[in-house]
Amino acid sequence: MQLAPIELLGLVAGAFGTFAAAPQAVKIIQTKQARDISLTTYLMAMTGGILWGLYGWFEGSLSIVFWNGVSLLMCASIIWLKLRHSGEPG
Amino acid sequence: MQLAPIELLGLVAGAFGTFAAAPQAVKIIQTKQARDISLTTYLMAMTGGILWGLYGWFEGSLSIVFWNGVSLLMCASIIWLKLRHSGEPG
Repeated sequence: MQLAPIELLGLVAGAFGTFAAAPQAVKIIQTKQARDISLTTYLMAMTGGILWGLYGWFEGSLSIVFWNGVSLLMCASIIWLKLRHSGEPG
Repeated sequence: MQLAPIELLGLVAGAFGTFAAAPQAVKIIQTKQARDISLTTYLMAMTGGILWGLYGWFEGSLSIVFWNGVSLLMCASIIWLKLRHSGEPG
């Protein structure tokens, strides 16, 4: 499969956006602290991911559904970690 | 201008994603605390925004350039707030 340079750029751009939440998840797991993190931010990002997933579904774009599915999982993990560790003393 | 329902869905999805960082910025401004926030996460999200902006530029898509420009400003604000307030005691 030959990938056009512009689509390679889009792929790298998407990977950065999708995996940006990973270091945040690692940080919460390591420090067990999540007090300063905004729950609303990740709820909004998750809602955006669900809506983009629907958009991709209706447009028949597997890449949009796939990448937003991954984003959704990342955001859900942060929300779970945040709820689990927020109550602990700073 | 008549907007197709699917494009309206894309617009709402994009708005959620782009403005997700706003509550995080407000939270840091209010609490003056940003210790638990991952700098890498926002640096990666900003890199993704720059790459998507380039993608939109080469594809001639004003919407992609515009929304990623807004995302970029949001991420840059969080990074600035994080660096400013991270050193303060928890």
